[in-house]
Amino acid sequence: DSKLKIFTCNSNPKLANQIADYIGIPMGESHTTSFSDGEIQVKLSESVRGSHVYIIQSTCLPVNDNLMELLVMVDALKRASAKSINVVIPYYGYARQDRKARSRDPITAKLVADLIEKAGAHRVIAMDLHAMQIQGFFDIPVDHLLGVPILAQYFRSKQIENPIVVSPDHGGVVRARKLADLLNAPLAIIDKRRPEPNVSEVMNIIGNIEGKTAILIDDIIDTAGTIVLGANALVEGGAKEVYACCTHPVLSGPAMERLENSPLKEVIVTDTIPITHPNPTNKLKVLSVAPLLGEAIIRVHEELSISKLFEL
Amino acid sequence: DSKLKIFTCNSNPKLANQIADYIGIPMGESHTTSFSDGEIQVKLSESVRGSHVYIIQSTCLPVNDNLMELLVMVDALKRASAKSINVVIPYYGYARQDRKARSRDPITAKLVADLIEKAGAHRVIAMDLHAMQIQGFFDIPVDHLLGVPILAQYFRSKQIENPIVVSPDHGGVVRARKLADLLNAPLAIIDKRRPEPNVSEVMNIIGNIEGKTAILIDDIIDTAGTIVLGANALVEGGAKEVYACCTHPVLSGPAMERLENSPLKEVIVTDTIPITHPNPTNKLKVLSVAPLLGEAIIRVHEELSISKLFEL
Ligand SMILES: Nc1ncnc2c1ncn2[C@@H]1O[C@H](COP(=O)(O)O)[C@@H](O)[C@H]1O
Ligand SMILES: Nc1ncnc2c1ncn2[C@@H]1O[C@H](COP(=O)(O)O)[C@@H](O)[C@H]1O
Repeated sequence: DSKLKIFTCNSNPKLANQIADYIGIPMGESHTTSFSDGEIQVKLSESVRGSHVYIIQSTCLPVNDNLMELLVMVDALKRASAKSINVVIPYYGYARQDRKARSRDPITAKLVADLIEKAGAHRVIAMDLHAMQIQGFFDIPVDHLLGVPILAQYFRSKQIENPIVVSPDHGGVVRARKLADLLNAPLAIIDKRRPEPNVSEVMNIIGNIEGKTAILIDDIIDTAGTIVLGANALVEGGAKEVYACCTHPVLSGPAMERLENSPLKEVIVTDTIPITHPNPTNKLKVLSVAPLLGEAIIRVHEELSISKLFEL
Repeated sequence: DSKLKIFTCNSNPKLANQIADYIGIPMGESHTTSFSDGEIQVKLSESVRGSHVYIIQSTCLPVNDNLMELLVMVDALKRASAKSINVVIPYYGYARQDRKARSRDPITAKLVADLIEKAGAHRVIAMDLHAMQIQGFFDIPVDHLLGVPILAQYFRSKQIENPIVVSPDHGGVVRARKLADLLNAPLAIIDKRRPEPNVSEVMNIIGNIEGKTAILIDDIIDTAGTIVLGANALVEGGAKEVYACCTHPVLSGPAMERLENSPLKEVIVTDTIPITHPNPTNKLKVLSVAPLLGEAIIRVHEELSISKLFEL
């Protein structure tokens, strides 16, 4: 009776389907559309009574529509008597507004956590949250998965000679350290200052990159300003080749053109966010997180089913 | 110290400015914009510490963006130590999803109420909620204002001969009854069946409209299907002229063209939602709710200031 069901909205149906395939069950039947005035309409076409449901939805662009789709879906599942509502958010939008960087700033990452809980979610499965603190914004369990092992596997398979992992800023050192460990490579750090949002400025490189193949890693590549300035600095500093990688390819505004015109050899990303650019650069390699999220769902579901045994 | 401040986001800045003018204070300085990836950024450019703040924001199209702007603004004001956060929602979107019309429907009108409260609002001022029950979705005070007196004043000033007020469906009879009372006019009802959302079908008219000037009234004109079919039925039934009026001109999809090509003489609406159509029909007359909302804010603020005296 405590069945596992997977639903999705419109942010990333391809990933959702791959996750369902990995687990080996069909997608739950639902339709998330809009009325003529833009209001979201969710129709669940099958019963969820007593089921453990997993909603796969990234809150990427159009972020407010995708977030609202998720919230309305949670509401519909709650009122349809789902036994547990588990929200799988491969990309958690608004994560960068996670603190008062200026006085009178909102903390939108916390607001979004509150909204998801208030709608009725029981558990969150997320990937590479911009700050680890975001887990603490929730009062429900958060399973936090990392993309680094998937990225590392790709670079290992390429058998890159003389690699060095580079963090594009001080905030990303822990992530870069993990990749360096997995690749058995040294670590460098770009010491930069950012004058305003979406504008970056590179300063100097801490660490010896000369003649090495540099692998820049970040959680998000948004306008690609940071990563491309980093790549330029690395080339100028004597790196032989520069790769970039990240979990979340936000790729807004001029990102695609910047990557194309940069000295970057390849840009390795995952499919937490679908690539919607009409003309993506050939440098882009997309790795799937479907097996990782599929495994996480299977494990959570086993846990939920075991706890059901104890209830008896 | 317990100052009144008015803020707005991007849904209806003209109305917000008119309300501030009516009250006789400048608009609070704030900027609600988007980052490159579409995430909303709210900047408050003045202190709100200890102030009673009123946010004017309609959740009209683009509904999810406007709702999220409102929520982020509430969050920012809360964290900036506003004394009370009063949310003025001239048009409350998602109001029609106010019950489970079909099994497994969400109740989005309740979800939105929960989200607004969770963000940190202390009070809501709303106009012509699609269902009175929506007041009960909130656990905070809701001041519910009606547009009917404003519409009645317009028709009185026109000195229409032999008027009859017509409700386009059974759900709107209470509202039509109010307008009829204010105009000292009789009442008729259109008995209709709606096969699907955004599609309407007229049945027959209850009441004698022959030779009379019919005034159709609804809370919302969305795709204008209901109102135009009603107008056609009234003309066929022998009405001399037909006017339509409503509080909320959603006017989505084919609405403007339908109104233009209909037998309607005039369509009287209010400015709870701005008219954004590039080519609005000349039949449209827009009445302002700014004085009504301005008075409501003044009265609430007096109440809040009086309660402050009792706190001492
Ligand atoms: N969607 C966004 N795009 C660009 N910058 C953002 C966004 N959201 C928040 N920020 C800003 O990014 C900064 C935080 O980024 P970080 O220092 O990388 O954690 C803060 O100053 C935020 O105001
Ligand atoms: N934004 C919308 N546009 C059109 N129909 C809607 C919208 N929201 C809800 N509905 C539907 O409208 C019906 C309720 O309208 P009403 O009977 O006028 O209260 C329900 O069947 C809803 O599914």
